[in-house]
Amino acid sequence: MHKLKFYNLKPLILISNDDGVHAKGLKALIDAVKPYGDIFVVAPEKGESGMSHAITIKNPLRVNKITEEEGLTIYSCSGTPVDSVKIALDKLIDRKPDLLLSGINHGSNASVSVIYSGTLGAAREGCINGIPSVGFSVTDHSKDADFSGAFKFVKQIVEDVLENGLDKDTFLNVNVPNISLDDIKGIRVSTQTNGVWKQEYEERQDPHGGTYYWLTGFFDNYEKGNKETDEWALDNGYVALVPIKINSTEYSVIEKLKNRY
Amino acid sequence: MHKLKFYNLKPLILISNDDGVHAKGLKALIDAVKPYGDIFVVAPEKGESGMSHAITIKNPLRVNKITEEEGLTIYSCSGTPVDSVKIALDKLIDRKPDLLLSGINHGSNASVSVIYSGTLGAAREGCINGIPSVGFSVTDHSKDADFSGAFKFVKQIVEDVLENGLDKDTFLNVNVPNISLDDIKGIRVSTQTNGVWKQEYEERQDPHGGTYYWLTGFFDNYEKGNKETDEWALDNGYVALVPIKINSTEYSVIEKLKNRY
Repeated sequence: MHKLKFYNLKPLILISNDDGVHAKGLKALIDAVKPYGDIFVVAPEKGESGMSHAITIKNPLRVNKITEEEGLTIYSCSGTPVDSVKIALDKLIDRKPDLLLSGINHGSNASVSVIYSGTLGAAREGCINGIPSVGFSVTDHSKDADFSGAFKFVKQIVEDVLENGLDKDTFLNVNVPNISLDDIKGIRVSTQTNGVWKQEYEERQDPHGGTYYWLTGFFDNYEKGNKETDEWALDNGYVALVPIKINSTEYSVIEKLKNRY
Repeated sequence: MHKLKFYNLKPLILISNDDGVHAKGLKALIDAVKPYGDIFVVAPEKGESGMSHAITIKNPLRVNKITEEEGLTIYSCSGTPVDSVKIALDKLIDRKPDLLLSGINHGSNASVSVIYSGTLGAAREGCINGIPSVGFSVTDHSKDADFSGAFKFVKQIVEDVLENGLDKDTFLNVNVPNISLDDIKGIRVSTQTNGVWKQEYEERQDPHGGTYYWLTGFFDNYEKGNKETDEWALDNGYVALVPIKINSTEYSVIEKLKNRY
């Protein structure tokens, strides 16, 4: 357990996201957690949805200070969500954050979306660097999504993690259903649903006769009805909270593979 | 276990990478596995190192047929390694591949690099889609890396996986040390090393006085001396083979978290 060390300072909360520094969900997250510490935001200057854990290698990064006021500093970063976290830790802040939060994402990051999501990439990077980290999402992709239902649960989880920490090498993927706060039944600790995005690319022709493809698709849930999963929790009015680990070794097959190699 | 179904066809082997369709490592992989089946390549048109499991959402994709001969078809894709796999499966091939291979990557993807790597992103995407999948890398970043040492082990692993399959929802991360074949001691089934890339961004000034940052950095191994890890295997002259799983739920903390939420 790496618990918060208070020293004589307020907690330092590093925030990023993948919808970009101007997203409504980022503002909602800042508003929710501002009472708990000094807030330092480094978020992509434009939308970086679907960027997973990508880092920028072949181009340099730039950062731009947008806001600096008592308890709140906001930078934009030219790179990905993970770049934003890395450059914050290495160049922009002078002590290790007590907490890293990412989001609030516009759209679900449940099930395998935890793999594709830039929001969860930022949370994973915080975790790799030994910081208690949480990614928040609301199951509404729209630019003008309603984050009022998430407000209460973001505060509850942040209070708990600041108080009790998280297990080493484990971060949280929290998804909030897009229903009114009164209808949310509470937080349900869940597992990552097994499933696949069946990608139906939509084929189009450009005016010059060239073919291009837009990503569309739907989610095929392999664990329908499994009450332990995050998709079940969301479908049944719960906030889904999944502990995710950094080390993805499948230990259960090691011995079997040693017999083959 | 999802074993190969032979029907009356030769195995279909889908190949991608993250160094781009013109990389030497891709050609080496094709040369190594061409005897085992029909080869279908969809690889990024340019280098996509560090793209992790990123997908392209806000722009359309384009593909371009580069080669079509008996047993070998090569397409480039304007997107990421994962995009390349997705569009291959959805639009470019008409049956499910028997095997997906990614690489051979120019540079190590051991330890946490499995998270950042586009080469492993492609392998993970194959696995999510139920295809036995393997990512190969050689620990030499140079454009002109020597893949002759990898040749034997790629063939050995591909023969084994075509024969015996892989466990469901598990793919392989294979790293080959950059030493001569005679010095390689064999394949060692290993675990993903715990550690972190300490990113030291290098700060520069452009001619107009603006500041920009290049990603550099070094790997801090938290498990030095642990003979089970992939970094130990590579440091000691072995090919490191790590089984990686899709589902990253940290089941061991579920009950503890249920007491908190």
